[in-house]
This record gives sequence, structure tokens and C-alpha cells, in this order.
Amino acid sequence: MKKNLFIIGLGLIGGSLGLALRESPLVNKIWGFDVDQEAEKKALELGIIDEALPLREGASQAGVVFLCTPLRTFPAIIEEIGDVLRPETLITDVGSTKENVMHIFKKLPRGVWGIGGHPMAGSEIKGINGADRYLFENAVYVLTPPPDVPEEALGYLQELLVFTGARVKIMEASYHDRLVATISHVPHLAAAALVNLTEGKDDNLMMAAGGFRDTTRIASSSPELWQDILFSNREYVGEKLEAFIALLSRMRKALADDDREALYKELKQAKIIRDQIPHKRKGLLPEFSEIVCIVPDQPGIIGKIGEILGSADINIVDIEILRAREGDGGSIRIGVKDRETAEKAVERLKSFAIKAWVR
Amino acid sequence: MKKNLFIIGLGLIGGSLGLALRESPLVNKIWGFDVDQEAEKKALELGIIDEALPLREGASQAGVVFLCTPLRTFPAIIEEIGDVLRPETLITDVGSTKENVMHIFKKLPRGVWGIGGHPMAGSEIKGINGADRYLFENAVYVLTPPPDVPEEALGYLQELLVFTGARVKIMEASYHDRLVATISHVPHLAAAALVNLTEGKDDNLMMAAGGFRDTTRIASSSPELWQDILFSNREYVGEKLEAFIALLSRMRKALADDDREALYKELKQAKIIRDQIPHKRKGLLPEFSEIVCIVPDQPGIIGKIGEILGSADINIVDIEILRAREGDGGSIRIGVKDRETAEKAVERLKSFAIKAWVR
Repeated sequence: MKKNLFIIGLGLIGGSLGLALRESPLVNKIWGFDVDQEAEKKALELGIIDEALPLREGASQAGVVFLCTPLRTFPAIIEEIGDVLRPETLITDVGSTKENVMHIFKKLPRGVWGIGGHPMAGSEIKGINGADRYLFENAVYVLTPPPDVPEEALGYLQELLVFTGARVKIMEASYHDRLVATISHVPHLAAAALVNLTEGKDDNLMMAAGGFRDTTRIASSSPELWQDILFSNREYVGEKLEAFIALLSRMRKALADDDREALYKELKQAKIIRDQIPHKRKGLLPEFSEIVCIVPDQPGIIGKIGEILGSADINIVDIEILRAREGDGGSIRIGVKDRETAEKAVERLKSFAIKAWVR
Repeated sequence: MKKNLFIIGLGLIGGSLGLALRESPLVNKIWGFDVDQEAEKKALELGIIDEALPLREGASQAGVVFLCTPLRTFPAIIEEIGDVLRPETLITDVGSTKENVMHIFKKLPRGVWGIGGHPMAGSEIKGINGADRYLFENAVYVLTPPPDVPEEALGYLQELLVFTGARVKIMEASYHDRLVATISHVPHLAAAALVNLTEGKDDNLMMAAGGFRDTTRIASSSPELWQDILFSNREYVGEKLEAFIALLSRMRKALADDDREALYKELKQAKIIRDQIPHKRKGLLPEFSEIVCIVPDQPGIIGKIGEILGSADINIVDIEILRAREGDGGSIRIGVKDRETAEKAVERLKSFAIKAWVR
């Protein structure tokens, strides 16, 4: 059965949901609302929504309401739209903690179903300009339904979200909140503390190589947003932060005692666990083989490489400029479907005097 | 004056140095040695070295010896080659700590100059297969010369390394070691502890989104290598780790006291400092503007996009496949030189029915 969607908050997540759900057979119209009229305009332009509607108007006509605004705005929005929601309307959110949201959803009128949601996806580009139809591809999307939700309501939402490419996982709100404390909130605090450890000194920052940049990237996120998130999950975060401090203190002791074996064990365990986390996948691309080629810096070189490979029926499944120097050249990483194709691609590029090898 | 280089250890760094220095006007021949004969073979194949030579033979003829093996092998190598080094030979390393290396270099014969080196660059691909001519582009390359080094010896090495594209910084070994404790060694321990906090539980790992992956990427490094690095810088690491634990304890207290303002201050400070660290640059590319386009999944599409833009004289300075779904399509990020070009590129792509917008 097709439903109309109403997306409240047209930012990165709201915008990406609109793009991803546009062509779902389960969707009729997509309406949107944002306090920022520019975002509404942009959403119309990009085909994210069919129409911008005021809060109460959209809410009164929608089959599913997506709350894609910051956590702290939820109570006011529910207050504003609660009385116009029709029975059997589904309301779901995309906030980072779920116990508190489920608590807020308890205020919904009878017959309106509030199902907590948390897509574990993001982008360094915030706001609607980061909207991407494939943002949720292969990402985990947690749903925390209330115990009394009708099966067909939950089933509809699940099926709808599968269309985004996400892997939908159903769990209890408190369980979710404990998991994100470990996997997201404490890492966030750690990143902030690592950055503060530099005291902002120039010599420290100058030395920041790729490792430090990666480790602390999330410390550039909005402090307002994260203050909200962390305090909305205060107890679990506190508990896990304490456990984290205990682990670090153990390492500190190993260093102080010159106990090489003890520290080695910690590093080894971390490597074993970390290696189990799948590589950052760019969606549902299958595994592929990689080649690297060194190219001269000249206009159109990427098109040329695409042509050289394309004319030999070699499809590029991934491409990245690794490093480059203006006016000189650079190295490009290219992914192709398998080892055999990679070797073929290398031969082909070499025949055009482009230095290339299989990684 | 041209010198012959001898690279001991043909891995990621040794291999990249060879590739980067091949065409330097300051270099005559590049010889190499590795305990792994396969690495030597590959180095010859990739044109990284002119010839593979045994340790003592290479060392006796070289003007500059690069030690690109793990720290713990240095004493044995110096022992092995010390007596064949000619006066005025330069020996330099690429290890992650410098006080201990400078200590080892004290055993060099009179007239041989040991200058500590640390290029702050790396790659997720280890070994010679990761070798990249542009690895050091725009990276900091620290040199820690002994106080009595002749000006022309240090000058030669500096000039040589500038050719790799690195920014050479000269500092005292102890100062370097304190900086890397803050910017590299404590972050490494933090990453390992964050991973161990998950206890390797499936539900935790399943939830690991991009943020956690980035923050803990370095925990996948070799525990043997890092045990060496951390204990070779034990005192400074211990000191900075203690400071890190103190920062985290302050955050823990803010959460326990429900002191939103105190935690906000920490997050805000981290953001201000983190935002000062330049973006991960892929070399000396100038700033550029970005567009995103949604493309159908079809063979040769990247070549086609390259052609479409190339034929309009639009040069792609960066390209990345953001996300994709096999048999469906994906989104590609393209960097072009400025905003105006970006708008032109969008128009051009749209005229070929490719959905695109400026980010």
C-alpha cells in the first residue's frame, strides 16, 4: 500500500531519505518542511520532495512522518502536530539516542505509532547539499518499535527503509543506547580529548599526519549537537567512558612497568577485533582488485584513462586520486572487478606509456 | 653534486623514496637491499632501484644510506655495515622516534654523519606494493641532525628530500619525540583502547559506522611494530597518556555532574582546534570546488564523464566514487578548479541527462 511521506527537517538525512525513497513502490507523495526556506527551495529543486507544506498541514495528511531535526526540537514538534495526526499514522525519527525519543513518543495520541529510528550513516557535508540517494546503502538502520506496535505498521516501515539500501535492525531502545555509547559516543569524547591534548599548539598541528586526522575527524562536528546527544545518553556514556579510562590506565601501567608483553597483548587484541570490522564499503559494490597508475598532469587525463580502459571493455568500479602535484602529475587508484581484469588494465595502460601496476 | 643512494629495506617508505628520488638531479645511482628477495625483485621491476646489492657492498659505495627497516634492526645493521662506510657518508633513517636513533648513530665511525629522519606519511597498503612516487607530497619530513653535522651534509639531505615534495622540518630529537607522543602515539593507544572497549562483540561491530572506522583505523597496524615504537618513546608517551586520561576524567565528571556547560566547552575547544588542521590534502593541489553527480551503472561511465567534461575544457582535479549499488548506479564526487567551472560542469552534465549539482 502506498503512503504519503512528510519529512520534517530537510538536512543531510532528511534530504537523503527523500532522494532514496522517491522511487519506492511503497511511496505516493513526499512532502517536506524546514524552518529554513532555502532548504525547502533546494529540496524542490533537487527533486527531493514533491511539495513543501507547513508543519500541521503536512502532518495531518501524511501516512508516515519522518522527524529529521535535532533531538531537542522533538517535544515542541510533537506538541505542535500531535492533535492533527490521523490514527494509524507512523512517526519515526533519525536521532542518535532512542530511550528518550521513545519516552517522547509516549505522548502521541492513541492509534498513532511512534517507532524510533537511527540510520548509522553520515557525510562530512552537512545540510541538504550533502543529500545523497545512496547515503544509506549498506548502512545499519536501527528501529526501536514500542512493544504494542501492530505488525503491519512496523512491517511497512521496514520494507520502506530496505529500499534505501540500508540493513534494518530491530532492537530495544535501551540496548541501542548502550551500543552507541560504546561505538559512537565514547569515541567522540576520545577524539575531542585527543585534539585538546595538542593544546592547539602549532608544532603539534603541523605534525598531524593522516592517522591523527582520521582519528580526530569527528571532533569537528557541531558541539551543540553533540552536547545534546551525549547528555541524552548520559548514564551509558558515563559507564562506558569509565571503562575506557580503565583500559587506558592499564596501558599506562604497562608502560610505567616496562611490561612490553602486557602492552603487546592489548595492541594485538585490538588488531584482531579491528580487522573484523568490514572495510568502509561504498555501497553494495562487490570486492574488487586495485591498480595504481602514475599519470602526467594534463587536462582530460581522467577521461583519457576511462577511454583507454573502456575501449578494452574494462569497467572502472572505483577510482580515487591518491596524491598529485600541480603541473607534474599524480597517482590514481583504480578498482576493477577482479585480478585478471586488473592485469589486463595494467597491460593496456602500459601500452599507452602510462606507468601502472596491480596493488 | 650527485650522490649514490643505498636504500636498506624496500617496503612502503623505502620504495616510495626510491620512486620519488629517481629523477632528482642530486642523485646518481639508487641501490637497494632487502632481506626479502621478492621485494628486491619487485623494486627492480618497478624501477625503484637500479640494482640490488648486498648490505656491505651497497654501504661501502653509497654517498647516502637510507635505513628503512624497523627500529629494532638498526643496531644490527649499523654493526654490520659500520666499518665499510666511507668518511662523509650520510646515513639517515625513517623511524618513528628519534632520541634512540640518534643514540645508535653515535656508534658510527668518525666522519660518517647520522641524521635522524621521520617522514610523516603512510598508506594503508604496506610493503613495496604500496610504494608511491607522491607519498611524501606535502607531508612533514622531520630531520634531527647531530649538533656537529657539517652544513653541506645537512644541506644536501634537505635539498634531496625537498624533491620528494615533503616539507622538511629540522628539530631536536627529544622535541620530535614529545610531539609524536601527543600527535601519534597516544592517539594510537586511544584507538586500540576504543576497539577493545567493544570486547569484539558482534552487535557492537555491526553498528560501527564511518566515524568509528575512521577513529580506530590505526588500531589495525602491526602490534609488533607499535610495541617497538611505543617503548622506544616510553617516557613521553607515559606522560602524555596521563594528560589524556586527565582530560577524559574531566569529561566524565561533567557528565556525572550533569554539567552541560563544562562538557560543551571541551567539545567547542576541540572543534576550534581541529578545524585549524588543514584538510587531508592529496598533495599540492590548489583548493577546488566540488560537484556531485548521480550516474547510472554502466560500463565506461567514468570515461564518459571524463569525455563530457574534457570536451568542454573542464579538467577534473579530483574524483571519488562516493557510494554505488551494483546494477543500479551511484554518486560520484568531482573536483574542478573553481566555483564557476563547477557550475559550468553541472550544466554540461545536465545536458547529457546526468543529474548533477554543486556541493
